[in-house]
Amino acid sequence: MTNWKITLAYDGTPYRGWQVQPGLPTVQGLLAEAIERTVGERVLPQGSGRTDAGVHALAQVASVALEAGIPAANLQRALNRCLPASIRVLAVEAVAAGFHARHSAVGKTYEYRIFPLKGEGSSRCDAVSRCDSAERICPPMLAPAVWPCPWPLDLGVMNRAAQAVVGEHDFTSFAACDPDLATRGLASSLVDAEPRSNVRSITRSGWEWVDGLAIYRVSANGFLHHMVRNLVGTFVQVGAHRLDAEAIPAILAALNRSAAGPTAPASGLFLVSVDYPSAVDSSAAFR
Amino acid sequence: MTNWKITLAYDGTPYRGWQVQPGLPTVQGLLAEAIERTVGERVLPQGSGRTDAGVHALAQVASVALEAGIPAANLQRALNRCLPASIRVLAVEAVAAGFHARHSAVGKTYEYRIFPLKGEGSSRCDAVSRCDSAERICPPMLAPAVWPCPWPLDLGVMNRAAQAVVGEHDFTSFAACDPDLATRGLASSLVDAEPRSNVRSITRSGWEWVDGLAIYRVSANGFLHHMVRNLVGTFVQVGAHRLDAEAIPAILAALNRSAAGPTAPASGLFLVSVDYPSAVDSSAAFR
Repeated sequence: MTNWKITLAYDGTPYRGWQVQPGLPTVQGLLAEAIERTVGERVLPQGSGRTDAGVHALAQVASVALEAGIPAANLQRALNRCLPASIRVLAVEAVAAGFHARHSAVGKTYEYRIFPLKGEGSSRCDAVSRCDSAERICPPMLAPAVWPCPWPLDLGVMNRAAQAVVGEHDFTSFAACDPDLATRGLASSLVDAEPRSNVRSITRSGWEWVDGLAIYRVSANGFLHHMVRNLVGTFVQVGAHRLDAEAIPAILAALNRSAAGPTAPASGLFLVSVDYPSAVDSSAAFR
Repeated sequence: MTNWKITLAYDGTPYRGWQVQPGLPTVQGLLAEAIERTVGERVLPQGSGRTDAGVHALAQVASVALEAGIPAANLQRALNRCLPASIRVLAVEAVAAGFHARHSAVGKTYEYRIFPLKGEGSSRCDAVSRCDSAERICPPMLAPAVWPCPWPLDLGVMNRAAQAVVGEHDFTSFAACDPDLATRGLASSLVDAEPRSNVRSITRSGWEWVDGLAIYRVSANGFLHHMVRNLVGTFVQVGAHRLDAEAIPAILAALNRSAAGPTAPASGLFLVSVDYPSAVDSSAAFR
Protein backbone atom coordinates (compact mmCIF):
# COMPACT_ATOMS: atom_id res chain seq x y z
CA MET A 1 0.00 0.00 0.00
CA THR A 2 1.44 3.36 -1.03
CA ASN A 3 -0.01 6.68 0.10
CA TRP A 4 0.14 9.25 -2.69
CA LYS A 5 0.09 13.05 -2.69
CA ILE A 6 -1.29 14.27 -6.03
CA THR A 7 -1.01 17.94 -7.01
CA LEU A 8 -3.51 19.11 -9.64
CA ALA A 9 -4.29 22.21 -11.68
CA TYR A 10 -7.74 22.64 -13.19
CA ASP A 11 -9.98 24.95 -15.13
CA GLY A 12 -13.14 24.85 -13.02
CA THR A 13 -15.38 26.21 -15.80
CA PRO A 14 -16.79 22.88 -17.05
CA TYR A 15 -17.13 21.26 -13.59
CA ARG A 16 -19.68 21.23 -10.79
CA GLY A 17 -16.87 21.78 -8.32
CA TRP A 18 -14.38 19.40 -6.72
CA GLN A 19 -16.67 17.06 -4.81
CA VAL A 20 -18.02 13.95 -6.51
CA GLN A 21 -21.75 14.09 -7.33
CA PRO A 22 -23.57 11.24 -9.05
CA GLY A 23 -24.11 11.92 -12.74
CA LEU A 24 -22.39 15.33 -12.70
CA PRO A 25 -18.90 16.24 -13.94
CA THR A 26 -16.65 16.95 -10.95
CA VAL A 27 -12.88 17.06 -10.56
CA GLN A 28 -12.82 14.48 -7.77
CA GLY A 29 -15.07 12.19 -9.82
CA LEU A 30 -12.88 12.42 -12.93
CA LEU A 31 -9.71 11.87 -10.89
CA ALA A 32 -11.26 8.77 -9.28
CA GLU A 33 -12.19 7.46 -12.75
CA ALA A 34 -8.67 8.13 -14.06
CA ILE A 35 -7.16 6.25 -11.09
CA GLU A 36 -9.50 3.31 -11.66
CA ARG A 37 -8.61 3.18 -15.37
CA THR A 38 -4.90 3.42 -14.54
CA VAL A 39 -4.48 0.90 -11.70
CA GLY A 40 -7.89 -0.83 -11.54
CA GLU A 41 -8.62 0.31 -7.99
CA ARG A 42 -11.93 1.94 -7.11
CA VAL A 43 -10.99 4.61 -4.57
CA LEU A 44 -12.02 8.17 -3.68
CA PRO A 45 -9.06 10.56 -3.57
CA GLN A 46 -9.46 13.12 -0.75
CA GLY A 47 -8.94 16.79 -1.60
CA SER A 48 -7.47 19.49 0.65
CA GLY A 49 -10.94 21.01 0.53
CA ARG A 50 -13.82 21.39 -1.85
CA THR A 51 -13.72 24.05 -4.54
CA ASP A 52 -17.13 25.27 -5.74
CA ALA A 53 -18.48 25.01 -9.27
CA GLY A 54 -16.47 27.26 -11.60
CA VAL A 55 -13.58 27.80 -9.16
CA HIS A 56 -10.11 27.02 -10.55
CA ALA A 57 -6.96 25.52 -9.02
CA LEU A 58 -3.31 26.19 -9.78
CA ALA A 59 -2.26 23.52 -7.24
CA GLN A 60 -5.02 21.61 -5.46
CA VAL A 61 -3.75 18.65 -3.43
CA ALA A 62 -5.36 15.22 -3.13
CA SER A 63 -4.28 12.10 -1.24
CA VAL A 64 -5.08 8.48 -1.97
CA ALA A 65 -3.70 5.10 -0.87
CA LEU A 66 -3.21 2.51 -3.62
CA GLU A 67 -2.28 -1.18 -3.64
CA ALA A 68 -0.56 -0.93 -7.02
CA GLY A 69 3.22 -0.74 -7.14
CA ILE A 70 3.75 1.90 -9.81
CA PRO A 71 6.53 4.48 -10.15
CA ALA A 72 5.37 8.06 -9.47
CA ALA A 73 6.31 9.32 -12.94
CA ASN A 74 4.32 6.52 -14.61
CA LEU A 75 1.30 7.18 -12.41
CA GLN A 76 1.42 10.88 -13.31
CA ARG A 77 1.72 10.22 -17.05
CA ALA A 78 -1.07 7.64 -17.01
CA LEU A 79 -3.44 9.93 -15.07
CA ASN A 80 -2.78 12.80 -17.48
CA ARG A 81 -3.53 10.50 -20.41
CA CYS A 82 -6.91 9.61 -18.85
CA LEU A 83 -7.88 13.14 -17.73
CA PRO A 84 -9.22 15.92 -20.00
CA ALA A 85 -6.91 18.87 -20.82
CA SER A 86 -8.88 20.97 -18.30
CA ILE A 87 -7.41 18.87 -15.44
CA ARG A 88 -3.65 18.26 -15.21
CA VAL A 89 -1.66 16.30 -12.66
CA LEU A 90 1.36 18.51 -11.90
CA ALA A 91 3.11 16.18 -9.46
CA VAL A 92 2.76 12.78 -7.81
CA GLU A 93 4.73 11.87 -4.66
CA ALA A 94 4.76 8.86 -2.35
CA VAL A 95 4.18 10.19 1.19
CA ALA A 96 3.92 8.86 4.76
CA ALA A 97 0.89 6.69 5.50
CA GLY A 98 -0.47 9.34 7.86
CA PHE A 99 -0.61 12.07 5.21
CA HIS A 100 -4.16 13.27 4.43
CA ALA A 101 -4.70 16.13 1.97
CA ARG A 102 -7.31 17.80 4.21
CA HIS A 103 -6.38 16.79 7.76
CA SER A 104 -2.65 17.38 7.29
CA ALA A 105 -3.05 20.83 5.71
CA VAL A 106 -1.91 23.78 7.83
CA GLY A 107 -2.65 26.59 5.41
CA LYS A 108 -3.88 27.65 2.00
CA THR A 109 -3.44 30.51 -0.41
CA TYR A 110 -6.15 31.76 -2.78
CA GLU A 111 -6.03 34.36 -5.53
CA TYR A 112 -8.97 36.33 -6.94
CA ARG A 113 -8.72 38.05 -10.34
CA ILE A 114 -10.88 41.02 -11.36
CA PHE A 115 -11.06 42.60 -14.82
CA PRO A 116 -12.50 46.10 -14.18
CA LEU A 117 -14.71 47.20 -17.07
CA LYS A 118 -14.30 50.85 -16.10
CA GLY A 119 -11.76 53.23 -14.63
CA GLU A 120 -8.44 52.29 -13.06
CA GLY A 121 -6.05 49.62 -14.24
CA SER A 122 -3.92 49.76 -17.35
CA SER A 123 -5.52 48.60 -20.58
CA ARG A 124 -2.55 46.34 -21.33
CA CYS A 125 -4.53 43.07 -21.16
CA ASP A 126 -5.29 42.87 -24.84
CA ALA A 127 -4.77 44.98 -27.90
CA VAL A 128 -8.52 45.03 -28.44
CA SER A 129 -9.56 45.60 -24.86
CA ARG A 130 -10.73 49.17 -25.42
CA CYS A 131 -13.57 50.20 -27.68
CA ASP A 132 -15.48 53.31 -28.67
CA SER A 133 -17.60 53.28 -25.54
CA ALA A 134 -16.14 54.12 -22.15
CA GLU A 135 -16.26 50.47 -21.13
CA ARG A 136 -13.30 48.17 -21.55
CA ILE A 137 -14.07 44.88 -23.24
CA CYS A 138 -13.05 41.74 -21.37
CA PRO A 139 -11.33 39.49 -23.94
CA PRO A 140 -13.52 36.37 -24.38
CA MET A 141 -10.62 33.95 -23.77
CA LEU A 142 -9.96 35.67 -20.42
CA ALA A 143 -13.60 35.80 -19.22
CA PRO A 144 -13.71 32.31 -17.61
CA ALA A 145 -10.73 33.24 -15.38
CA VAL A 146 -11.83 36.64 -14.05
CA TRP A 147 -14.76 38.61 -12.71
CA PRO A 148 -15.50 41.30 -15.31
CA CYS A 149 -16.46 43.86 -12.67
CA PRO A 150 -18.73 46.79 -13.64
CA TRP A 151 -17.29 49.38 -11.24
CA PRO A 152 -14.04 51.37 -11.24
CA LEU A 153 -11.98 50.08 -8.31
CA ASP A 154 -9.92 52.11 -5.84
CA LEU A 155 -7.24 49.62 -4.78
CA GLY A 156 -5.93 52.01 -2.13
CA VAL A 157 -9.05 51.74 0.03
CA MET A 158 -9.46 48.05 -0.88
CA ASN A 159 -6.02 47.40 0.61
CA ARG A 160 -7.00 49.25 3.79
CA ALA A 161 -10.03 46.96 4.04
CA ALA A 162 -7.95 43.87 3.18
CA GLN A 163 -5.46 44.69 5.96
CA ALA A 164 -8.30 44.84 8.50
CA VAL A 165 -8.98 41.09 8.22
CA VAL A 166 -5.36 40.03 8.86
CA GLY A 167 -4.95 38.12 12.13
CA GLU A 168 -7.18 35.73 14.07
CA HIS A 169 -10.88 36.50 13.77
CA ASP A 170 -14.26 34.81 13.86
CA PHE A 171 -15.22 34.99 10.18
CA THR A 172 -18.91 34.12 10.62
CA SER A 173 -19.87 37.33 8.78
CA PHE A 174 -17.96 36.07 5.72
CA ALA A 175 -19.08 32.42 5.85
CA ALA A 176 -21.73 30.98 3.53
CA CYS A 177 -25.22 31.01 5.03
CA ASP A 178 -25.58 27.34 4.32
CA PRO A 179 -27.20 25.71 7.39
CA ASP A 180 -26.71 22.24 5.93
CA LEU A 181 -22.99 22.74 5.47
CA ALA A 182 -22.52 24.59 8.75
CA THR A 183 -24.16 22.03 11.02
CA ARG A 184 -22.40 19.16 9.32
CA GLY A 185 -19.08 20.94 9.89
CA LEU A 186 -18.28 20.67 6.20
CA ALA A 187 -17.33 24.30 5.81
CA SER A 188 -13.79 23.28 4.79
CA SER A 189 -12.53 23.38 8.36
CA LEU A 190 -8.87 22.53 8.15
CA VAL A 191 -7.27 22.66 11.53
CA ASP A 192 -10.00 23.12 14.07
CA ALA A 193 -10.28 20.95 17.15
CA GLU A 194 -13.96 21.93 17.19
CA PRO A 195 -15.23 21.64 13.65
CA ARG A 196 -17.91 24.28 14.12
CA SER A 197 -15.57 27.11 15.04
CA ASN A 198 -15.51 29.93 12.51
CA VAL A 199 -12.24 31.32 13.85
CA ARG A 200 -9.46 31.45 11.26
CA SER A 201 -6.11 33.20 11.11
CA ILE A 202 -5.27 35.23 7.98
CA THR A 203 -1.53 35.80 7.53
CA ARG A 204 -1.64 37.73 4.25
CA SER A 205 -4.34 39.78 2.55
CA GLY A 206 -3.71 42.36 -0.15
CA TRP A 207 -4.58 43.72 -3.59
CA GLU A 208 -2.36 44.75 -6.48
CA TRP A 209 -2.66 45.67 -10.15
CA VAL A 210 -1.07 43.10 -12.47
CA ASP A 211 -1.39 43.68 -16.24
CA GLY A 212 -4.68 45.53 -15.89
CA LEU A 213 -6.19 42.98 -13.51
CA ALA A 214 -6.92 43.68 -9.85
CA ILE A 215 -5.46 40.67 -8.02
CA TYR A 216 -6.26 39.73 -4.42
CA ARG A 217 -4.00 37.24 -2.59
CA VAL A 218 -4.99 35.79 0.75
CA SER A 219 -3.29 33.16 2.93
CA ALA A 220 -4.76 31.61 6.09
CA ASN A 221 -4.63 28.49 8.20
CA GLY A 222 -8.03 27.63 6.76
CA PHE A 223 -11.07 29.10 5.04
CA LEU A 224 -14.80 28.83 5.62
CA HIS A 225 -17.17 28.02 2.78
CA HIS A 226 -17.40 31.04 0.37
CA MET A 227 -15.07 33.02 2.67
CA VAL A 228 -12.73 34.34 -0.05
CA ARG A 229 -15.61 35.22 -2.39
CA ASN A 230 -17.46 37.00 0.43
CA LEU A 231 -14.32 38.93 1.41
CA VAL A 232 -13.80 39.95 -2.24
CA GLY A 233 -17.46 40.95 -2.67
CA THR A 234 -17.13 43.17 0.41
CA PHE A 235 -13.77 44.67 -0.61
CA VAL A 236 -15.23 45.52 -4.04
CA GLN A 237 -18.02 47.45 -2.29
CA VAL A 238 -15.25 49.40 -0.56
CA GLY A 239 -13.31 49.86 -3.83
CA ALA A 240 -16.45 51.21 -5.54
CA HIS A 241 -16.90 53.67 -2.63
CA ARG A 242 -20.18 52.10 -1.57
CA LEU A 243 -18.77 51.02 1.80
CA ASP A 244 -16.14 52.55 4.06
CA ALA A 245 -12.86 50.64 4.53
CA GLU A 246 -13.12 51.40 8.24
CA ALA A 247 -16.39 49.41 8.42
CA ILE A 248 -14.59 46.02 8.28
CA PRO A 249 -13.97 45.57 12.06
CA ALA A 250 -17.67 46.21 12.74
CA ILE A 251 -18.63 43.70 10.00
CA LEU A 252 -16.35 41.08 11.61
CA ALA A 253 -17.78 41.85 15.05
CA ALA A 254 -21.38 41.48 13.82
CA LEU A 255 -20.89 37.70 13.35
CA ASN A 256 -23.69 37.94 10.82
CA ARG A 257 -23.46 37.18 7.10
CA SER A 258 -25.87 39.99 6.23
CA ALA A 259 -23.41 42.56 7.60
CA ALA A 260 -20.90 41.84 4.80
CA GLY A 261 -21.11 42.40 1.02
CA PRO A 262 -22.33 40.04 -1.71
CA THR A 263 -20.53 36.87 -2.83
CA ALA A 264 -18.14 37.51 -5.74
CA PRO A 265 -18.55 35.21 -8.77
CA ALA A 266 -16.74 31.85 -8.79
CA SER A 267 -14.95 32.49 -12.10
CA GLY A 268 -12.31 34.81 -10.61
CA LEU A 269 -11.19 32.45 -7.82
CA PHE A 270 -8.05 30.28 -7.92
CA LEU A 271 -6.78 27.91 -5.23
CA VAL A 272 -3.06 28.72 -5.48
CA SER A 273 -1.42 26.35 -2.99
CA VAL A 274 -1.93 24.18 0.08
CA ASP A 275 0.69 24.12 2.83
CA TYR A 276 1.75 21.07 4.85
CA PRO A 277 4.31 20.64 7.64
CA SER A 278 7.58 19.82 5.87
CA ALA A 279 7.90 16.47 7.71
CA VAL A 280 4.57 15.33 6.25
CA ASP A 281 5.06 17.01 2.92
CA SER A 282 8.29 15.39 1.77
CA SER A 283 8.49 11.94 0.32
CA ALA A 284 11.48 11.43 2.66
CA ALA A 285 8.96 10.81 5.43
CA PHE A 286 7.83 7.74 3.55
CA ARG A 287 11.22 6.05 3.29
CA MET B 1 -31.87 51.60 -43.36
CA THR B 2 -28.34 51.62 -41.98
CA ASN B 3 -25.68 49.13 -43.02
CA TRP B 4 -23.53 48.13 -40.05
CA LYS B 5 -20.03 46.67 -39.81
CA ILE B 6 -19.74 44.71 -36.55
CA THR B 7 -16.34 43.56 -35.28
CA LEU B 8 -16.43 40.62 -32.85
CA ALA B 9 -14.05 38.62 -30.67
CA TYR B 10 -15.06 35.17 -29.49
CA ASP B 11 -13.92 32.10 -27.63
CA GLY B 12 -14.96 29.37 -30.04
CA THR B 13 -14.79 26.59 -27.42
CA PRO B 14 -18.51 26.44 -26.55
CA TYR B 15 -19.78 26.97 -30.13
CA ARG B 16 -20.45 24.81 -33.15
CA GLY B 17 -18.68 27.36 -35.28
CA TRP B 18 -19.83 30.65 -36.80
CA GLN B 19 -22.64 29.52 -39.08
CA VAL B 20 -26.18 29.32 -37.75
CA GLN B 21 -27.47 25.76 -37.28
CA PRO B 22 -30.95 25.01 -35.96
CA GLY B 23 -30.88 23.99 -32.29
CA LEU B 24 -27.10 24.34 -31.93
CA PRO B 25 -25.13 27.16 -30.29
CA THR B 26 -23.33 29.17 -32.98
CA VAL B 27 -21.83 32.65 -32.99
CA GLN B 28 -23.91 33.84 -35.94
CA GLY B 29 -27.05 32.48 -34.28
CA LEU B 30 -26.36 34.22 -30.96
CA LEU B 31 -25.49 37.49 -32.71
CA ALA B 32 -28.78 37.32 -34.67
CA GLU B 33 -30.68 36.72 -31.41
CA ALA B 34 -28.91 39.64 -29.73
CA ILE B 35 -29.81 41.92 -32.66
CA GLU B 36 -33.44 40.81 -32.51
CA ARG B 37 -33.61 41.45 -28.76
CA THR B 38 -31.93 44.84 -29.20
CA VAL B 39 -33.84 46.35 -32.16
CA GLY B 40 -36.66 43.85 -32.74
CA GLU B 41 -35.52 42.98 -36.27
CA ARG B 42 -35.14 39.38 -37.36
CA VAL B 43 -32.07 39.42 -39.62
CA LEU B 44 -29.08 37.20 -40.35
CA PRO B 45 -25.76 39.05 -40.01
CA GLN B 46 -23.25 37.94 -42.66
CA GLY B 47 -19.75 36.99 -41.51
CA SER B 48 -16.49 37.49 -43.42
CA GLY B 49 -16.36 33.71 -43.55
CA ARG B 50 -17.29 30.77 -41.42
CA THR B 51 -15.05 29.68 -38.58
CA ASP B 52 -15.27 26.00 -37.65
CA ALA B 53 -16.38 24.61 -34.28
CA GLY B 54 -13.79 25.48 -31.61
CA VAL B 55 -12.00 28.13 -33.72
CA HIS B 56 -11.61 31.53 -32.06
CA ALA B 57 -11.68 35.10 -33.36
CA LEU B 58 -9.82 38.18 -32.21
CA ALA B 59 -11.65 40.30 -34.81
CA GLN B 60 -14.25 38.58 -36.98
CA VAL B 61 -16.32 41.00 -39.08
CA ALA B 62 -20.05 40.79 -39.76
CA SER B 63 -22.37 43.07 -41.73
CA VAL B 64 -26.07 43.62 -41.34
CA ALA B 65 -28.60 46.23 -42.53
CA LEU B 66 -31.09 47.45 -39.93
CA GLU B 67 -34.17 49.70 -40.07
CA ALA B 68 -33.62 50.97 -36.52
CA GLY B 69 -32.10 54.40 -36.03
CA ILE B 70 -29.73 53.74 -33.14
CA PRO B 71 -26.35 55.33 -32.35
CA ALA B 72 -23.39 52.97 -32.91
CA ALA B 73 -22.23 53.14 -29.27
CA ASN B 74 -25.70 52.23 -28.00
CA LEU B 75 -25.98 49.32 -30.44
CA GLN B 76 -22.60 48.01 -29.28
CA ARG B 77 -23.49 48.29 -25.59
CA ALA B 78 -26.89 46.67 -26.08
CA LEU B 79 -25.44 43.75 -28.09
CA ASN B 80 -22.77 43.13 -25.42
CA ARG B 81 -25.47 43.09 -22.75
CA CYS B 82 -27.37 40.39 -24.69
CA LEU B 83 -24.35 38.27 -25.65
CA PRO B 84 -22.50 35.85 -23.34
CA ALA B 85 -19.01 36.83 -22.08
CA SER B 86 -17.53 34.40 -24.64
CA ILE B 87 -18.65 36.73 -27.48
CA ARG B 88 -17.83 40.45 -27.40
CA VAL B 89 -18.65 43.19 -29.87
CA LEU B 90 -15.44 45.21 -30.16
CA ALA B 91 -16.71 47.86 -32.57
CA VAL B 92 -19.82 48.91 -34.48
CA GLU B 93 -19.64 51.27 -37.48
CA ALA B 94 -22.17 52.58 -39.97
CA VAL B 95 -20.80 51.77 -43.45
CA ALA B 96 -21.77 52.25 -47.10
CA ALA B 97 -24.82 50.30 -48.29
CA GLY B 98 -22.63 48.20 -50.59
CA PHE B 99 -20.43 46.88 -47.78
CA HIS B 100 -20.68 43.12 -47.27
CA ALA B 101 -18.46 41.41 -44.69
CA ARG B 102 -17.64 38.51 -47.05
CA HIS B 103 -17.89 39.96 -50.55
CA SER B 104 -16.03 43.18 -49.68
CA ALA B 105 -13.15 41.43 -47.91
CA VAL B 106 -9.82 41.53 -49.71
CA GLY B 107 -7.70 39.64 -47.19
CA LYS B 108 -7.51 37.89 -43.86
CA THR B 109 -4.93 37.08 -41.22
CA TYR B 110 -4.99 33.96 -39.05
CA GLU B 111 -2.80 32.91 -36.13
CA TYR B 112 -2.20 29.37 -34.90
CA ARG B 113 -0.86 28.73 -31.37
CA ILE B 114 1.00 25.57 -30.37
CA PHE B 115 2.06 24.58 -26.84
CA PRO B 116 4.83 21.99 -27.38
CA LEU B 117 4.76 19.34 -24.66
CA LYS B 118 8.39 18.43 -25.34
CA GLY B 119 11.65 19.98 -26.34
CA GLU B 120 12.16 23.51 -27.66
CA GLY B 121 10.45 26.64 -26.46
CA SER B 122 11.05 28.37 -23.17
CA SER B 123 9.07 27.07 -20.19
CA ARG B 124 8.00 30.61 -19.29
CA CYS B 125 4.27 30.00 -19.83
CA ASP B 126 3.47 29.10 -16.28
CA ALA B 127 5.37 28.58 -13.06
CA VAL B 128 4.02 25.04 -12.86
CA SER B 129 4.42 24.12 -16.50
CA ARG B 130 7.25 21.66 -15.86
CA CYS B 131 6.96 18.50 -13.82
CA ASP B 132 9.03 15.51 -12.84
CA SER B 133 8.50 13.77 -16.16
CA ALA B 134 10.15 15.09 -19.32
CA GLU B 135 6.81 16.40 -20.57
CA ARG B 136 5.73 19.98 -20.01
CA ILE B 137 2.23 20.37 -18.63
CA CYS B 138 -0.12 22.60 -20.61
CA PRO B 139 -1.85 24.87 -18.03
CA PRO B 140 -5.58 23.96 -18.02
CA MET B 141 -6.70 27.59 -18.51
CA LEU B 142 -4.52 27.79 -21.65
CA ALA B 143 -5.61 24.47 -23.18
CA PRO B 144 -8.72 25.76 -25.03
CA ALA B 145 -6.56 28.32 -26.88
CA VAL B 146 -3.67 26.14 -28.08
CA TRP B 147 -2.77 22.80 -29.58
CA PRO B 148 -0.83 20.93 -26.89
CA CYS B 149 1.46 19.27 -29.43
CA PRO B 150 3.23 16.01 -28.48
CA TRP B 151 6.41 16.55 -30.54
CA PRO B 152 9.44 18.81 -30.08
CA LEU B 153 9.29 21.40 -32.88
CA ASP B 154 12.17 22.72 -34.98
CA LEU B 155 10.95 26.20 -35.93
CA GLY B 156 13.91 26.70 -38.28
CA VAL B 157 12.74 24.06 -40.74
CA MET B 158 9.09 24.98 -40.14
CA ASN B 159 9.87 28.51 -41.32
CA ARG B 160 11.56 27.13 -44.46
CA ALA B 161 8.36 25.18 -45.16
CA ALA B 162 6.16 28.21 -44.31
CA GLN B 163 8.11 30.38 -46.77
CA ALA B 164 7.48 27.86 -49.56
CA VAL B 165 3.73 28.61 -49.60
CA VAL B 166 4.12 32.40 -49.95
CA GLY B 167 2.81 33.70 -53.29
CA GLU B 168 -0.01 32.65 -55.60
CA HIS B 169 -0.65 28.90 -55.62
CA ASP B 170 -3.42 26.41 -56.16
CA PHE B 171 -3.98 25.20 -52.58
CA THR B 172 -6.09 22.14 -53.45
CA SER B 173 -3.64 19.93 -51.49
CA PHE B 174 -4.42 21.97 -48.36
CA ALA B 175 -8.21 22.29 -48.85
CA ALA B 176 -10.73 20.22 -46.91
CA CYS B 177 -11.79 17.05 -48.73
CA ASP B 178 -15.41 18.01 -48.31
CA PRO B 179 -17.16 17.27 -51.61
CA ASP B 180 -20.35 18.89 -50.40
CA LEU B 181 -18.60 22.14 -49.57
CA ALA B 182 -16.38 22.08 -52.63
CA THR B 183 -19.13 21.61 -55.21
CA ARG B 184 -21.33 24.20 -53.54
CA GLY B 185 -18.45 26.67 -53.69
CA LEU B 186 -18.76 27.29 -49.96
CA ALA B 187 -15.08 26.83 -49.19
CA SER B 188 -14.88 30.39 -47.86
CA SER B 189 -13.97 31.80 -51.29
CA LEU B 190 -13.46 35.49 -50.75
CA VAL B 191 -12.42 37.18 -53.94
CA ASP B 192 -12.70 34.65 -56.70
CA ALA B 193 -14.55 35.41 -59.90
CA GLU B 194 -14.92 31.64 -60.32
CA PRO B 195 -16.05 30.29 -56.98
CA ARG B 196 -14.49 26.87 -57.52
CA SER B 197 -10.93 28.11 -57.99
CA ASN B 198 -8.55 26.95 -55.28
CA VAL B 199 -5.94 29.56 -56.18
CA ARG B 200 -5.07 31.92 -53.33
CA SER B 201 -2.26 34.37 -52.73
CA ILE B 202 -0.38 34.20 -49.43
CA THR B 203 1.46 37.41 -48.55
CA ARG B 204 2.89 36.39 -45.19
CA SER B 205 3.64 33.02 -43.62
CA GLY B 206 5.98 32.47 -40.68
CA TRP B 207 6.58 30.93 -37.27
CA GLU B 208 8.05 32.41 -34.10
CA TRP B 209 8.42 31.54 -30.42
CA VAL B 210 6.37 33.80 -28.12
CA ASP B 211 6.42 33.03 -24.38
CA GLY B 212 6.98 29.32 -24.92
CA LEU B 213 4.31 29.05 -27.62
CA ALA B 214 5.07 28.36 -31.28
CA ILE B 215 2.99 30.95 -33.17
CA TYR B 216 2.18 30.79 -36.90
CA ARG B 217 0.88 33.92 -38.65
CA VAL B 218 -0.48 33.77 -42.16
CA SER B 219 -2.09 36.45 -44.33
CA ALA B 220 -3.74 35.87 -47.72
CA ASN B 221 -6.37 37.30 -50.04
CA GLY B 222 -8.55 34.38 -48.98
CA PHE B 223 -8.45 30.90 -47.48
CA LEU B 224 -9.99 27.57 -48.46
CA HIS B 225 -11.90 25.50 -45.92
CA HIS B 226 -9.43 24.00 -43.35
CA MET B 227 -6.51 25.58 -45.25
CA VAL B 228 -4.72 27.08 -42.22
CA ARG B 229 -5.17 23.94 -40.13
CA ASN B 230 -3.93 21.74 -42.99
CA LEU B 231 -0.91 24.01 -43.53
CA VAL B 232 -0.13 23.87 -39.78
CA GLY B 233 -0.58 20.08 -39.63
CA THR B 234 1.89 19.77 -42.52
CA PHE B 235 4.41 22.27 -41.06
CA VAL B 236 4.33 20.36 -37.75
CA GLN B 237 5.27 17.18 -39.62
CA VAL B 238 8.26 19.14 -40.93
CA GLY B 239 9.07 20.54 -37.47
CA ALA B 240 9.00 17.03 -35.98
CA HIS B 241 11.42 15.89 -38.74
CA ARG B 242 8.86 13.52 -40.24
CA LEU B 243 8.72 15.44 -43.52
CA ASP B 244 11.32 17.46 -45.40
CA ALA B 245 10.78 21.24 -45.67
CA GLU B 246 11.76 20.96 -49.33
CA ALA B 247 8.76 18.68 -49.97
CA ILE B 248 6.27 21.58 -49.87
CA PRO B 249 6.45 22.57 -53.60
CA ALA B 250 5.76 18.96 -54.59
CA ILE B 251 2.82 18.81 -52.15
CA LEU B 252 1.38 22.00 -53.70
CA ALA B 253 1.93 20.61 -57.21
CA ALA B 254 0.16 17.34 -56.35
CA LEU B 255 -3.22 19.17 -56.11
CA ASN B 256 -4.26 16.31 -53.84
CA ARG B 257 -5.26 16.56 -50.19
CA SER B 258 -3.63 13.23 -49.37
CA ALA B 259 -0.20 14.65 -50.31
CA ALA B 260 -0.25 17.04 -47.31
CA GLY B 261 -0.19 16.41 -43.56
CA PRO B 262 -3.08 15.96 -41.13
CA THR B 263 -5.49 18.73 -40.06
CA ALA B 264 -4.30 20.51 -36.89
CA PRO B 265 -6.91 20.81 -34.07
CA ALA B 266 -9.35 23.72 -34.12
CA SER B 267 -8.45 24.92 -30.61
CA GLY B 268 -5.17 26.60 -31.68
CA LEU B 269 -6.69 28.70 -34.50
CA PHE B 270 -7.58 32.41 -34.23
CA LEU B 271 -9.05 34.64 -36.95
CA VAL B 272 -6.96 37.76 -36.27
CA SER B 273 -8.31 40.32 -38.75
CA VAL B 274 -10.21 40.86 -41.99
CA ASP B 275 -9.04 43.48 -44.47
CA TYR B 276 -11.27 45.73 -46.58
CA PRO B 277 -10.45 48.43 -49.12
CA SER B 278 -10.19 51.64 -47.10
CA ALA B 279 -13.00 53.32 -49.09
CA VAL B 280 -15.43 50.57 -48.04
CA ASP B 281 -13.99 50.17 -44.59
CA SER B 282 -14.44 53.66 -43.26
CA SER B 283 -17.69 55.01 -41.99
CA ALA B 284 -16.85 58.11 -44.07
CA ALA B 285 -18.09 56.18 -47.09
CA PHE B 286 -21.51 56.14 -45.53
CA ARG B 287 -21.85 59.90 -45.10
